[in-house]
Amino acid sequence: MVADPALRDVYVPHAYPEQQADLGEITMNYAEAGEPDKPAVLLIPEQTGSWWGYEETMRLLAEDFHVYAVDLRGQGRSSWTPKRYSFDNFGNDLVRFIALVVKRPVVVAGNSSGGVLAAWLSAYSMPGQVRGALCEDARFFSSELVTTCGHSIRQAAGPLFELFRTYLGDQWNVGDWEGYCRAAAASSSQVARYFAEDEIPQHMQEYDPEWARVFWEGTVGMHLPHERMLSQVKTPILLTQHMRGIDPDTGNLIGALSDEQAARARQLMESAGVKVDYESAPDAVHIMHQFDPPRYVKIFTRWAATLAA
Amino acid sequence: MVADPALRDVYVPHAYPEQQADLGEITMNYAEAGEPDKPAVLLIPEQTGSWWGYEETMRLLAEDFHVYAVDLRGQGRSSWTPKRYSFDNFGNDLVRFIALVVKRPVVVAGNSSGGVLAAWLSAYSMPGQVRGALCEDARFFSSELVTTCGHSIRQAAGPLFELFRTYLGDQWNVGDWEGYCRAAAASSSQVARYFAEDEIPQHMQEYDPEWARVFWEGTVGMHLPHERMLSQVKTPILLTQHMRGIDPDTGNLIGALSDEQAARARQLMESAGVKVDYESAPDAVHIMHQFDPPRYVKIFTRWAATLAA
Amino acid sequence: MVADPALRDVYVPHAYPEQQADLGEITMNYAEAGEPDKPAVLLIPEQTGSWWGYEETMRLLAEDFHVYAVDLRGQGRSSWTPKRYSFDNFGNDLVRFIALVVKRPVVVAGNSSGGVLAAWLSAYSMPGQVRGALCEDARFFSSELVTTCGHSIRQAAGPLFELFRTYLGDQWNVGDWEGYCRAAAASSSQVARYFAEDEIPQHMQEYDPEWARVFWEGTVGMHLPHERMLSQVKTPILLTQHMRGIDPDTGNLIGALSDEQAARARQLMESAGVKVDYESAPDAVHIMHQFDPPRYVKIFTRWAATLAA
Amino acid sequence: MVADPALRDVYVPHAYPEQQADLGEITMNYAEAGEPDKPAVLLIPEQTGSWWGYEETMRLLAEDFHVYAVDLRGQGRSSWTPKRYSFDNFGNDLVRFIALVVKRPVVVAGNSSGGVLAAWLSAYSMPGQVRGALCEDARFFSSELVTTCGHSIRQAAGPLFELFRTYLGDQWNVGDWEGYCRAAAASSSQVARYFAEDEIPQHMQEYDPEWARVFWEGTVGMHLPHERMLSQVKTPILLTQHMRGIDPDTGNLIGALSDEQAARARQLMESAGVKVDYESAPDAVHIMHQFDPPRYVKIFTRWAATLAA
Repeated sequence: MVADPALRDVYVPHAYPEQQADLGEITMNYAEAGEPDKPAVLLIPEQTGSWWGYEETMRLLAEDFHVYAVDLRGQGRSSWTPKRYSFDNFGNDLVRFIALVVKRPVVVAGNSSGGVLAAWLSAYSMPGQVRGALCEDARFFSSELVTTCGHSIRQAAGPLFELFRTYLGDQWNVGDWEGYCRAAAASSSQVARYFAEDEIPQHMQEYDPEWARVFWEGTVGMHLPHERMLSQVKTPILLTQHMRGIDPDTGNLIGALSDEQAARARQLMESAGVKVDYESAPDAVHIMHQFDPPRYVKIFTRWAATLAA
Repeated sequence: MVADPALRDVYVPHAYPEQQADLGEITMNYAEAGEPDKPAVLLIPEQTGSWWGYEETMRLLAEDFHVYAVDLRGQGRSSWTPKRYSFDNFGNDLVRFIALVVKRPVVVAGNSSGGVLAAWLSAYSMPGQVRGALCEDARFFSSELVTTCGHSIRQAAGPLFELFRTYLGDQWNVGDWEGYCRAAAASSSQVARYFAEDEIPQHMQEYDPEWARVFWEGTVGMHLPHERMLSQVKTPILLTQHMRGIDPDTGNLIGALSDEQAARARQLMESAGVKVDYESAPDAVHIMHQFDPPRYVKIFTRWAATLAA
Repeated sequence: MVADPALRDVYVPHAYPEQQADLGEITMNYAEAGEPDKPAVLLIPEQTGSWWGYEETMRLLAEDFHVYAVDLRGQGRSSWTPKRYSFDNFGNDLVRFIALVVKRPVVVAGNSSGGVLAAWLSAYSMPGQVRGALCEDARFFSSELVTTCGHSIRQAAGPLFELFRTYLGDQWNVGDWEGYCRAAAASSSQVARYFAEDEIPQHMQEYDPEWARVFWEGTVGMHLPHERMLSQVKTPILLTQHMRGIDPDTGNLIGALSDEQAARARQLMESAGVKVDYESAPDAVHIMHQFDPPRYVKIFTRWAATLAA
Repeated sequence: MVADPALRDVYVPHAYPEQQADLGEITMNYAEAGEPDKPAVLLIPEQTGSWWGYEETMRLLAEDFHVYAVDLRGQGRSSWTPKRYSFDNFGNDLVRFIALVVKRPVVVAGNSSGGVLAAWLSAYSMPGQVRGALCEDARFFSSELVTTCGHSIRQAAGPLFELFRTYLGDQWNVGDWEGYCRAAAASSSQVARYFAEDEIPQHMQEYDPEWARVFWEGTVGMHLPHERMLSQVKTPILLTQHMRGIDPDTGNLIGALSDEQAARARQLMESAGVKVDYESAPDAVHIMHQFDPPRYVKIFTRWAATLAA
């Protein structure tokens, strides 16, 4: 694995052409589908994901929307920025992308940590940029190192990220995939055993493992207390909550957020005075948009129809 | 409030004479009761507590035991050590106290964070020093900033400690008791409203609020993962668990440890191969030894009788 | 001192009318001078400063420039954002201000930590926003908790900020100005003795002391290694370096950056391929723009004339 | 490289037989030389070192002293204690070793971080344990993450430790020696290029790289501000200072402590009221005791003769 992102030759072709936007600090890679006379939608992948996890979703949404799907810094083909990964920097990249590329109000939809960013945009983007935010199985509270509600990152996806940090290393400087697989197989944490395949999955090859480190160490959200952010959202929200449970061996959270965390998030967002919809989908996998696009699109479209223009 | 501990003139007389032991870094204040031909017992107060919270307990135990009750560094009349408060330093003070003063195997019993120290002594003291450890409503996991099980300090007693830190300050350098009371009364946390009296209680006057800061910031246990410590205990243990519940407004833990935390602690200690007794006392206050000495002494004595000489 | 910023009644009239821009998360307070047909200039105050520290400078610059002077979040009349103070958030506020208010390329000039932000804008703003950056006695390296070059914040202005944090508190929740003055007078650090007046100075009344805490704790720059930022500047730079020296009692840095730090900063910025000018003014006070506006304006104007349109 | 210390088979025979002392938490490995009727000496290795670095020194000292040389936890054949490496825990291990094995007042002598521990013992051991402390090229201040004087760990040996942390991993869980060597050769830091040999050196094989991590992250000294420790020493001290200089490429400290740091350390220790001797040896390598035993022994012996019995 070549560590230098400039020299990475790991990419594969996709159904939509890729474009790049210069945002100042980073170059953001993205793809688009649909026509400009349709309402604009911005799709934000989960940690380790690239825009093309939305490929089929884009095809389905393109009939009714002008869809943009992006790679966040440190993922896909976007720039890698060592030492500078944080929710606020991820979020402000998207603010700039909306200002420079989308150029009109947009419905944002993100998955997992991308769902946290959707809420971030609702709370903290520039006035008028965001019409509504779909938070798909968003990691509210559970991606905080020190959280005010329920399981912390160390009691949720953290053990997986710790393995990425240790065996892959910032910018793949360690790059020991085999060691990662061995450690994952031996882990007491069900989450950490998540995937351990012989081949490095395509999306992982495109991913800077420093993301994993900053989540494990908690610095990614150093300046983003979820409780505060959720109480400051300014647009309608749809929160979906997928498969969840408790690892009987460790007590850790399996899934993106617990029922307690979903309830608190809704309560805080409602206290902000916005319309908050909620859809429980305990039978759905975490990355519904990639593995069940029709269901995801149906949920998205029904909710988007309720948004003011 | 005079900040310099050497100049503090805050003490009051007690039923037992106070003595001082030079342990090297600190002078440890203590009292003793009972006769040297009886088994030795070492009593360890909770955070903000002084040895004399055990006064009545000492009287009751003195018939059957040679009892020592101590002030930890930063509490009571023992030395204040700015920047040097940690579980490992508290614990090693006790190791030295046993070596230099008690001078024989001892049964240790501590309350709250003192209960964590009782487990610490079971795991990490010098060979042969400890016969058994009573962990009275011990803050297992719930005094960790980043814990592996259940509520963290920020979801438990933390909000109270944050107020101490802010309004009292290290070594009382701020010393704004009135401001503390106002903030406590206004706090959304039930724990933080714990006490807010016009007069500074005697035990608080004897207490260095830097303790509160290191618990709030989590540095007190930087090198003491509870999961690891509990799996390394080496003596019989009695864990008592008192009143506990959930603050309906915040989801925070009320009480010292949740049922989930007590269960995990027992499981880990049992995995270490020692005998672990457990007594649930949901009707008892947190500091049973001070507010219901007869009940405490009965529990202690019954359990101590089961220990090997 | 009323803690709630919404209720603060601490403001005084100034020579220029104040305006407010809604940037999404915050409302930014600013003033402007000069005509829109002149080149745009953005002035960024130092920590504890408000826009009106530039009042006389604005008057002098208004002949040749269209000048904007702002209050950063947590200062002056701009919003206070507890838990969300960071260089990246300060910087992205300015990106938005340029996009929404200035609306054309601008010369930026900041003092002290504002000088760090000027470099931040050169490195990380949106393409085409910044024509050049004047870093007036900028705290390069010396405002980092863990720095790669020379004195850290703890060996520089940190001791002053520690006193603000302790005696004033986040959002003035402690608010003990008298206690601050006592502690400042007794401090072994020359920097901490900086000011201790009976009356709270006007600029301090407008300032959220949480700024001081995040600098003291180092979290303000958690995601902004100066070495990296300086090697990524994209526009011409002018660095001025004012009075500096070493506190003989502590070895601490007096002044904003040492000669070693200035030299390293220049070397890194030059390695980025931009034109770097440097002006040593060892006889000038730290906040030259406020206390010697003519000299400041002369330096600014001469350098600005060299910038491409 | 087998990760589990219990299964490590990396040891080689030495000139002195090895013994083990059960200290409670750890088993400490040590060797001794000389006769019990001679004054006792305790030798403490540097980071990555094992007792046998003192082998020749022991032979030379054995004529006049009863010499103990130990392995610290995480080094040599002593126990590995994941998550529990700190100066205070290292120091209290030695307190116990003196209490349980040496059993009389002892002259302590440590190198590098072992020199910090010699000062720690002077300040914080039990009364009467230590007669004097030789701090051989001790890393005062320069092993602190946030220091009050001069270069921090990040500006000194840190870059080397960062490579150990990344490529070797806690308990050698990564174990990529080849990757370490590649990164060391490419490092901009002269210190990080220190050694990069094809074979893993014997002393490194015996070393838990978590040591490197806790120094890099600064947690090893979380509760040990050097300024405070140095002002609390209680016995005569000899500080030696060896080869030192500044890396022209980075400004980083080469060597264990700068002249500024040595001067401050002496000043603080003198302020404690003890006799402080100092020997500058700019021509000596850092680990003099291993690479020039006669010179080390001469310095030791001459100084030890001045100590009260």
